Amino acid sequence: MDRPGLTVTAFDWVPDFAQGQVRDLRPRWALEEAQLPYEVELLPQGAQEEPEHLARQPFGQVPVLTLEGRSMFESGACVWRIAEQSDSLLPRDPALRDACLSWVIAALNTLEPPIMMMAMLWFFESWPDRFGLEDREAPGRLRAPTRGMVDKRLSQFGRALGGRETIVGDGFTVADLMLTSVLLPAAQMDLLEAHPEVKAYYERHSARPGFRKAQADQIAAFAENAGKYQAA
Amino acid sequence: MDRPGLTVTAFDWVPDFAQGQVRDLRPRWALEEAQLPYEVELLPQGAQEEPEHLARQPFGQVPVLTLEGRSMFESGACVWRIAEQSDSLLPRDPALRDACLSWVIAALNTLEPPIMMMAMLWFFESWPDRFGLEDREAPGRLRAPTRGMVDKRLSQFGRALGGRETIVGDGFTVADLMLTSVLLPAAQMDLLEAHPEVKAYYERHSARPGFRKAQADQIAAFAENAGKYQAA
Repeated sequence: MDRPGLTVTAFDWVPDFAQGQVRDLRPRWALEEAQLPYEVELLPQGAQEEPEHLARQPFGQVPVLTLEGRSMFESGACVWRIAEQSDSLLPRDPALRDACLSWVIAALNTLEPPIMMMAMLWFFESWPDRFGLEDREAPGRLRAPTRGMVDKRLSQFGRALGGRETIVGDGFTVADLMLTSVLLPAAQMDLLEAHPEVKAYYERHSARPGFRKAQADQIAAFAENAGKYQAA
Repeated sequence: MDRPGLTVTAFDWVPDFAQGQVRDLRPRWALEEAQLPYEVELLPQGAQEEPEHLARQPFGQVPVLTLEGRSMFESGACVWRIAEQSDSLLPRDPALRDACLSWVIAALNTLEPPIMMMAMLWFFESWPDRFGLEDREAPGRLRAPTRGMVDKRLSQFGRALGGRETIVGDGFTVADLMLTSVLLPAAQMDLLEAHPEVKAYYERHSARPGFRKAQADQIAAFAENAGKYQAA
């Protein structure tokens, strides 16, 4: 199949806390694993709110994946679409495929939401004025119960792993890619320390050359463009 | 294709606040729209933590979808899998299919997380002891900034709708099904009042016979089994 202009859209720069975590990381990594050649389109800060970008990404986010002359959005959707073109990322065996689908959605809709709520508490605490937050102590007071929800999900995931290196079948699949991706901010917030099996899983898969290249490429663009946004 | 035992797992009872919202609603609705016959397996409260259930649903949730002699989990995954068997829910045209995938994941991973964070604040506020929350006022103090995040996403979604009745193409698809599903708790928390276009979209699609039947069937089981759990 001809794939003119397989392109991932990313920002040309983001603040330090987001570097290496912006969600174009996910399709970049999937494309590396699938060994599909692609280009990266860098979006200057501000462009995400322009009509041209909103026409293809209604929430002003990255990534956009351009393929076969059209575009799609949402990192989870882009990754699934890429995986559908890769027999290694998405095994053809129907039972393994169904299991991959279950785990990809579990990553996005069961594991990630409490992890992102922990991140939001940190955002609220770090920039109370930006969020119109009068009580600056309130986010910290919700950290323990929110962490309790994260811990519950991580424990359940560790139990499901049961000592295996991958969650579906015997090889690395799109399920491991998505699970590792949603664990990334949890690792950064030190939430995996209480879950050694999950931490080992995260470290094993985030050490893959495809992940390393995807993350290094994302960060390299930020370093190149930092001058545009700093010390004006 | 023969589909022995197409079954959706649901609880036989849940507390009032969750009735009509438990996530088996989503595959039930999808199966109604796809006109696929199915059975419902009711799970007594407590059984979700038993090894037998955890073997097929590692997070102790419902639904589980049993099909072709095996099972899968996560409502979003089950719905996508059902939609793949329905040309109306998931159009065969590649561009429409890609758009459906983008919007299904946007529903689950961009729109739903802040809506669920609003719900979590309500849970924390309603059952502080259960969550080990010492400051009972803290959840309420995060309501305004969290609502701000919900409003931003709902505004963006309303803009993307742009007056259309469906988000992809000219007919009701799995994208509308998933978006309407994640808007349900937002509607219950009165979060759609500031977004009349989104509210009209939610009301239009939640008035479909398939949604009504799925929700009524879920609630009917709760009414039948309430006696098992109340006033013991």
